[in-house]
Amino acid sequence: MSGIRRLAQQLNLSIGTVSRALNGKPDVNEATRQRVLEAAAEIGYAPNQAGRALRRGSTGVVGFMMQTGSEITGEGDVFFMSVFDGVQTVLARHQLDLVVLLCSSEQDSAEYMKRIVARGIADALIISATKRVDHRIDFLASRSIPFVALGRSQSDAGHPWLDLDFEGMARQGVSRLVGRGHRRIAVYAPLDDTNLGFVFIDAYRDELARRGIEFDPALVFRAHPNERGGHDIAHAIAGLPAERRPTGFIFTNEMMALGLYNGLYEVGLVPGRDIALIGRDSPQTHFLVPKLTSFTLSLRDLGITLAESLLATMPGFSDIYPRGLVRSVIPLNLIEGDSDKMTVERT
Amino acid sequence: MSGIRRLAQQLNLSIGTVSRALNGKPDVNEATRQRVLEAAAEIGYAPNQAGRALRRGSTGVVGFMMQTGSEITGEGDVFFMSVFDGVQTVLARHQLDLVVLLCSSEQDSAEYMKRIVARGIADALIISATKRVDHRIDFLASRSIPFVALGRSQSDAGHPWLDLDFEGMARQGVSRLVGRGHRRIAVYAPLDDTNLGFVFIDAYRDELARRGIEFDPALVFRAHPNERGGHDIAHAIAGLPAERRPTGFIFTNEMMALGLYNGLYEVGLVPGRDIALIGRDSPQTHFLVPKLTSFTLSLRDLGITLAESLLATMPGFSDIYPRGLVRSVIPLNLIEGDSDKMTVERT
Repeated sequence: MSGIRRLAQQLNLSIGTVSRALNGKPDVNEATRQRVLEAAAEIGYAPNQAGRALRRGSTGVVGFMMQTGSEITGEGDVFFMSVFDGVQTVLARHQLDLVVLLCSSEQDSAEYMKRIVARGIADALIISATKRVDHRIDFLASRSIPFVALGRSQSDAGHPWLDLDFEGMARQGVSRLVGRGHRRIAVYAPLDDTNLGFVFIDAYRDELARRGIEFDPALVFRAHPNERGGHDIAHAIAGLPAERRPTGFIFTNEMMALGLYNGLYEVGLVPGRDIALIGRDSPQTHFLVPKLTSFTLSLRDLGITLAESLLATMPGFSDIYPRGLVRSVIPLNLIEGDSDKMTVERT
Repeated sequence: MSGIRRLAQQLNLSIGTVSRALNGKPDVNEATRQRVLEAAAEIGYAPNQAGRALRRGSTGVVGFMMQTGSEITGEGDVFFMSVFDGVQTVLARHQLDLVVLLCSSEQDSAEYMKRIVARGIADALIISATKRVDHRIDFLASRSIPFVALGRSQSDAGHPWLDLDFEGMARQGVSRLVGRGHRRIAVYAPLDDTNLGFVFIDAYRDELARRGIEFDPALVFRAHPNERGGHDIAHAIAGLPAERRPTGFIFTNEMMALGLYNGLYEVGLVPGRDIALIGRDSPQTHFLVPKLTSFTLSLRDLGITLAESLLATMPGFSDIYPRGLVRSVIPLNLIEGDSDKMTVERT
């Protein structure tokens, strides 16, 4: 408190005004807020008020847990950095800092989470890559730590979550390809028990069934979620006997496209001519020939919504973000390309 | 301490053995270490011993500060994720966790650093994107916080640093192109006062001078360090009158290549035919046609060296990593491609 007292004295403001300015409350005029923040920075005072308002909190830090490791992010990332950008935009309004908690794929994510909580690094958490059954969810709920999940799970602690519309991608993808005569439509699925794999495959099977197409497990290609994975899938497709080979392929991972295109060209299959492709948009896909038909969404907006959904559950912020308990599936937009224009003769 | 005592009792081991196992000391056999770590995880005990051995420490956390923001990492990252992977490999040996501290490009990095230190998030820090004069260095030294810098700086606190050999890239790049008859050789430089820009440009100018080529400031292209930056540079090159246009271009950023190729094709300049290119390797560049001649290094090894150089300065670890004060420039390897094979007729 002596920090705030000193600031108030120095700036000739009331302690209440300084506190409201430091906490990003709306009833302080912008010029005053600037003066307070500059003076606080000058004396190296980190406003912990925001932190104290949190359930456990005193760090003023929100943690974002992501999976890393040479088999996942070893080739880079074109998803999380943009999401972080959106999260930071919201946290900066309240002088909260975002730290990224890197959980190596070699570690058990639930054990990692316990350790992070024991270390007291963050007051609130954003978790990603949710599993079908995710012990992190029960653990965080049992400790009353505010969190939001990026991804659904069968584990339900009445917590807020956001997820991408993997059902929509499966249904729209299958529908487009079937409309062009395809019957052998392959899909990508993750190697592990990440929940999005189940959601996507379930909707894919259901959509095939609705159209009277039998599900063939050989058309589900599991691979690492990156360029190497895309490359591996291209070779796996080429390895099938011609009559069992898919004529179309739908993938929901944003890192795969370059490896997939390259792999297909290597094995003599031309994307868009020998196999129709529907994928996920990323900065890299803009340079592909033929242009990839892809699903897209604003990752920055996703980050903003994640952060606001988290704050909405936290005392001290819920009045600023009266969103209630957010549980929503975010639709993606389809960008028409040339990679899925080919038609298949019905036999 | 009661956590350790409990573990020792439960496992029927001495407190000293449990402590050494938790702290990654070498004189514990691997099976015992595993038993201790598993039991510790079971009761949710996070060994803070490692933390206590640090200068300020009690968090067991090493922070890696990186710059973010829509203008920098908004398009993704193909550098830091691999470096993190290497850092984690080392920290995991000692039950230390890595957290990434994201400093938005809209924030002042020195102010951000003060706040992070005040929040007490980490015991030791890795800083990146060092500036010509970098106030973070003086600040961390004044607080006696162990840190290592990825990047040199004129600010010198007798601290450890690692940097890529930007001089080598400039000299080798210019040398290759001059050998093929080029005289108008352009280069990329960052928009801000990141130190690597100065180092690279100084060596580039010096190498030109040694070869009797006059420096032309119009051939230094400043842009964002990403694909959009590459795209912008292609258009800027095309905007020059033909006789002032460069015949070669050297860039040290690993995110630029795709945007640059695409931009050049857009303006009717064929990479490798109308302009020779020498760049930086990344997973994305492997798919470019013509193949990019590029500089490469193991980013994972860089991460390992960074972490070991940091621990080498810290009481409790310096005996395990007797590296002394590390200050070293890491050479890159040149991968021969087809993008710089064209020769220019001497006029």
